[in-house]
Amino acid sequence: MNFASDNWAGASPKVLEALAHGSAGIAPAYGADDLTREVKARLAALFGHEVGAFFVATGTSANSLCLAALCPPYGAVYAHDEAHIIGDEGGASEFVTQGARLIGIPGVGGKIGLADFKAVAGKPAGPASRFPLPSTLSLTQASECGTVYREEEVAALSEAAAAFGLKVHMDGARFANAFAFLCSLRGDMTPGDITWKAGVDALSLGFTKNGALLAEAVVLFDPERADEVEWRRKRSGQVLSKARLVAAQLLAMLEDDHWLDLARHANRMALMLGHGLVTAGHRLGFDIEANEVFAVLPKAMIPRLRQEGALFYEYPRASLAADRRAGPDAELVRLVTSFATMPEEVEQFIKLASQI
Amino acid sequence: MNFASDNWAGASPKVLEALAHGSAGIAPAYGADDLTREVKARLAALFGHEVGAFFVATGTSANSLCLAALCPPYGAVYAHDEAHIIGDEGGASEFVTQGARLIGIPGVGGKIGLADFKAVAGKPAGPASRFPLPSTLSLTQASECGTVYREEEVAALSEAAAAFGLKVHMDGARFANAFAFLCSLRGDMTPGDITWKAGVDALSLGFTKNGALLAEAVVLFDPERADEVEWRRKRSGQVLSKARLVAAQLLAMLEDDHWLDLARHANRMALMLGHGLVTAGHRLGFDIEANEVFAVLPKAMIPRLRQEGALFYEYPRASLAADRRAGPDAELVRLVTSFATMPEEVEQFIKLASQI
Amino acid sequence: MNFASDNWAGASPKVLEALAHGSAGIAPAYGADDLTREVKARLAALFGHEVGAFFVATGTSANSLCLAALCPPYGAVYAHDEAHIIGDEGGASEFVTQGARLIGIPGVGGKIGLADFKAVAGKPAGPASRFPLPSTLSLTQASECGTVYREEEVAALSEAAAAFGLKVHMDGARFANAFAFLCSLRGDMTPGDITWKAGVDALSLGFTKNGALLAEAVVLFDPERADEVEWRRKRSGQVLSKARLVAAQLLAMLEDDHWLDLARHANRMALMLGHGLVTAGHRLGFDIEANEVFAVLPKAMIPRLRQEGALFYEYPRASLAADRRAGPDAELVRLVTSFATMPEEVEQFIKLASQI
Amino acid sequence: MNFASDNWAGASPKVLEALAHGSAGIAPAYGADDLTREVKARLAALFGHEVGAFFVATGTSANSLCLAALCPPYGAVYAHDEAHIIGDEGGASEFVTQGARLIGIPGVGGKIGLADFKAVAGKPAGPASRFPLPSTLSLTQASECGTVYREEEVAALSEAAAAFGLKVHMDGARFANAFAFLCSLRGDMTPGDITWKAGVDALSLGFTKNGALLAEAVVLFDPERADEVEWRRKRSGQVLSKARLVAAQLLAMLEDDHWLDLARHANRMALMLGHGLVTAGHRLGFDIEANEVFAVLPKAMIPRLRQEGALFYEYPRASLAADRRAGPDAELVRLVTSFATMPEEVEQFIKLASQI
Repeated sequence: MNFASDNWAGASPKVLEALAHGSAGIAPAYGADDLTREVKARLAALFGHEVGAFFVATGTSANSLCLAALCPPYGAVYAHDEAHIIGDEGGASEFVTQGARLIGIPGVGGKIGLADFKAVAGKPAGPASRFPLPSTLSLTQASECGTVYREEEVAALSEAAAAFGLKVHMDGARFANAFAFLCSLRGDMTPGDITWKAGVDALSLGFTKNGALLAEAVVLFDPERADEVEWRRKRSGQVLSKARLVAAQLLAMLEDDHWLDLARHANRMALMLGHGLVTAGHRLGFDIEANEVFAVLPKAMIPRLRQEGALFYEYPRASLAADRRAGPDAELVRLVTSFATMPEEVEQFIKLASQI
Repeated sequence: MNFASDNWAGASPKVLEALAHGSAGIAPAYGADDLTREVKARLAALFGHEVGAFFVATGTSANSLCLAALCPPYGAVYAHDEAHIIGDEGGASEFVTQGARLIGIPGVGGKIGLADFKAVAGKPAGPASRFPLPSTLSLTQASECGTVYREEEVAALSEAAAAFGLKVHMDGARFANAFAFLCSLRGDMTPGDITWKAGVDALSLGFTKNGALLAEAVVLFDPERADEVEWRRKRSGQVLSKARLVAAQLLAMLEDDHWLDLARHANRMALMLGHGLVTAGHRLGFDIEANEVFAVLPKAMIPRLRQEGALFYEYPRASLAADRRAGPDAELVRLVTSFATMPEEVEQFIKLASQI
Repeated sequence: MNFASDNWAGASPKVLEALAHGSAGIAPAYGADDLTREVKARLAALFGHEVGAFFVATGTSANSLCLAALCPPYGAVYAHDEAHIIGDEGGASEFVTQGARLIGIPGVGGKIGLADFKAVAGKPAGPASRFPLPSTLSLTQASECGTVYREEEVAALSEAAAAFGLKVHMDGARFANAFAFLCSLRGDMTPGDITWKAGVDALSLGFTKNGALLAEAVVLFDPERADEVEWRRKRSGQVLSKARLVAAQLLAMLEDDHWLDLARHANRMALMLGHGLVTAGHRLGFDIEANEVFAVLPKAMIPRLRQEGALFYEYPRASLAADRRAGPDAELVRLVTSFATMPEEVEQFIKLASQI
Repeated sequence: MNFASDNWAGASPKVLEALAHGSAGIAPAYGADDLTREVKARLAALFGHEVGAFFVATGTSANSLCLAALCPPYGAVYAHDEAHIIGDEGGASEFVTQGARLIGIPGVGGKIGLADFKAVAGKPAGPASRFPLPSTLSLTQASECGTVYREEEVAALSEAAAAFGLKVHMDGARFANAFAFLCSLRGDMTPGDITWKAGVDALSLGFTKNGALLAEAVVLFDPERADEVEWRRKRSGQVLSKARLVAAQLLAMLEDDHWLDLARHANRMALMLGHGLVTAGHRLGFDIEANEVFAVLPKAMIPRLRQEGALFYEYPRASLAADRRAGPDAELVRLVTSFATMPEEVEQFIKLASQI
């Protein structure tokens, strides 16, 4: 019963097959190969927009390169208090931007509210150059709480950002899960609707958590910034020599909407898990919209679940709404599902959580 | 006939098999898994020394992290004029060290000579802090010219470096080829003999060019620096989430000396190629010691070789000895062999180079 | 009536005289002169401790070099929410530390409370390298609210910092004013008592606001870090060529306690101003301990004071205690006194604030 | 007999007087004062061009901020092998540009020749991002050998630079001396002729060596880059709080061509010294064009000159023309004159050099 994280799973069989297939023969190194060219064209088609696309080894690299493309070293980046770039990447954004400052904004459910954003970023920066220059808003989609910004929320935040002279970054480490959810709300949703059409300038597009071995993309909707990003990518050691093997993974993911199938499965598993826990009498910390379930469980139950083989983390979140807080005898836990989660694991967990 | 580069090949079948196998089931992310632990232990055993070992996606990352571990932002790094860190990594070392200066040293055959090193690095730096602080000597093994430093050459350079207060880095993107060659000279050579026993403090240990999909290691012989490197690795976006899949590749490489078998094959192909070209009446730019052949070919022959399907680069090298320089109607070309090079390709090339 | 800032004043006559005197004849450049040597010895004597002392042109430079000496690029620095390094230096600390993160801590009266510090810095940083490494606590003495940490407050914060593995920096842009105040509480106070004896590792010691033309010092109580700071100072362009002219200013300041006389005068003017405003029926935002008066004035009065020639800023401060907040018709203003403030200016301001 | 350096002198009496005068009364801090505004206007008038002008404490800061304005972190800067930015500033340019690479170009007499520049900077940089991006040419005027680029030399180098896509920086730590010399060749020369009209984009304009206490300017001929420089200046701790006192120095220097009078005097002293040494039978290393004399003196004479009170440095220069090299019993020494050099000192030195 792995609910520890979606990156505890291996790679999807189709990805492994594509790797083996892509490995045959020879091809130019460093991204000058046909597969890389093809996947770039596929991404442009997917988003319905010319893009600058760069492939990197980690989400941390994708995020920090996106920020370096949008924010000068003397700039400030606004992100949710609990954003991955603030709390989980060891200061990579400060390093790769060469000194920008990350400013946290609170917000219920892992999402930045419009009013909170305006209150923080709209503060007059005072005489020139006393405070870092407000430069970029970073949104996490899906959020660190498993919630998803709606199209109109992204658009409203981007509009406010533009009014302050800021660019917009989207951390899409779990973009597939978010997009799959949004498609379930409105059938004709496209990836472009939730990104560039809603004001996003640069997207970290993650495939690793969703089933690749190691494949993340920087997607710039303003390709004029591409040259600079290529230099910065090289300097961060992210220009992979056998690039075609990353391209092969991405092509396998995009082929026949494999990426969406995997995300839909993970989301379904999360919904099933959440529903079961509620039925068993437990409270949820956040609405389940992507592939993360936050549940309030009795403290006493936690070690016993682990004893039975369940893998997961206690996960206190400041962005829990006041009326959803865990009481003194309970704890918020995070349960992440993935493309590899099996219904049997979910059922077993629910059963344990009902009986213990 | 691929002689363009060893990273134009895919991954060795054993590596692909290990990937597929390693992908099954679940494991903790970010390197907290059993395979990663195992490969670290294997590396310590291989070198016969406690090591700090870190896995990264590219050789550029391995090099720049090694240098950041050894050299402060206000330091100077000495390397051969034609070293990869100077001419091929887009300034990654300057970026990751956060401002160190790379100083080129000339040297015949891609190798730094002891006298040249002493002449450049031994120059009094003058009043404190006028010049960057001399900090690190970086040696490329095998060199960019396909030559290999002997044990005693490394030891003598390291000793001189230590006398100047410098640390020693080894760029081992093709360490396997160099080591296989040294073993052919002296049967009981160990990887430790040519690294820490000869004064090397940090090694970039490459597996990608030698047959992995994507697997490079930073190997520190002074594990006290390990904590700092881990922070810097995280900040460069090199902490791979599905780290066990990199570990799986490395284990496959180390298993039954697969890495050496692959390197020996590539070296053999280079020798065969070089011998054939000499027999056909061509001159070589450098002695063939690893998996690169530099040959002086008539200019008129080059397009015709390409027409027949040969892939390779013209490769002018300033470190060519005076008596090996190409005349006005000839050109130095670089021919790189790999684990995937087939004797038939070599034979075909030799045949063409004899007949045209 | 200049209450805008203490750096709106020029230099003290004694400083100007010392400059003219020090300018005669010749002396080695870049700090190799006798005056610089002498002032370093004087600082060591003043603090009763061996020090590494460096002279720089601005307080921003002193602060950021101190932080770079204490905190690695991957570290975190804790400071009061309203600290100068966070809100007024344009991100200099991020630049000079090469990427450290500044973390704000709230606190009434511009001072960090022990419990708040422990709550923020004591949070487990989680798995290695996910969050910047907690490294340094920075205290502002006197604070941005004109309040002063007592000896035992500094000691308690330093002790807690040490328990978390953190070093301690003191931003002493107005150290003279703070020290003069502390001497008024306890006659035998020494500068060492409030710095290294209370756990401070590095001090930005300001003289410019207090009457120099341009003279700030980095004072390291651990001289082992001195070499590194010298490199960083050089690289920030802070190694002044005619260094003896900075030394001359410092010697004039230290001679016969001129620095303390100037600070005592400024403090007296602040007390006189604060007392007068209270007598006139106005509330103060903070206790007056150094040379800043924060007063709650009716909004309608402010333009009229300016019309009469008073220079000062509205200065909203989040660290105002709840019971001292300005009501809807009032505004917090900051009034800074300096060595150059004349009693007549203070009297005139009080008179206006009583009559309007 | 001070010939050690021009920055061993103090400040010109007019500068000290201006300081004392400028110190009276109050004025806004950080450059928002009237004197600063006035000196900016004066600089624009002097150059006959709109400029972005920034005042900093050191020449090292001026140089590195100019380079940061022209060259991205992933760029390369070309300068003479013996340029101050390469050999004397501790890597400040690498730090402030955040990682650019400095590339030395040899050249007789401290000046870069057009052919040498084209040979180095014109080398194809190869596949994108393998080598730092060629970005900037930096010229030192007057050079480190006391020679001066003629108008047409600057223009030809700038033209070649532009053809390679490079910007041009001029390190004018001794610009006054160079300009005074050029005026002696052509009476109607203006500062604009030798800078923006000849293709210079950014100028480090030094006043300290020429007689100020501490006053250097960054002059941008493309004011669009000004905002970015202001951020970088703030972050390097170069925004001086009592900025009017730097402005006061500059105004004193510009008033009635005081800066040129001082430079002309220093140049005259150098010519007188050089002429005397030649008459006494010594050889000069370089033509005397500014305020530096390089002379080939018998080794045996050097300690005796010092014994008699002469201050100067041995100064081996690789850029010495082959026919001017010092023989085995001789040494190249550098003799710098300044605004404060007295004819008596020069005469005394010549006398000693004739008699010993």
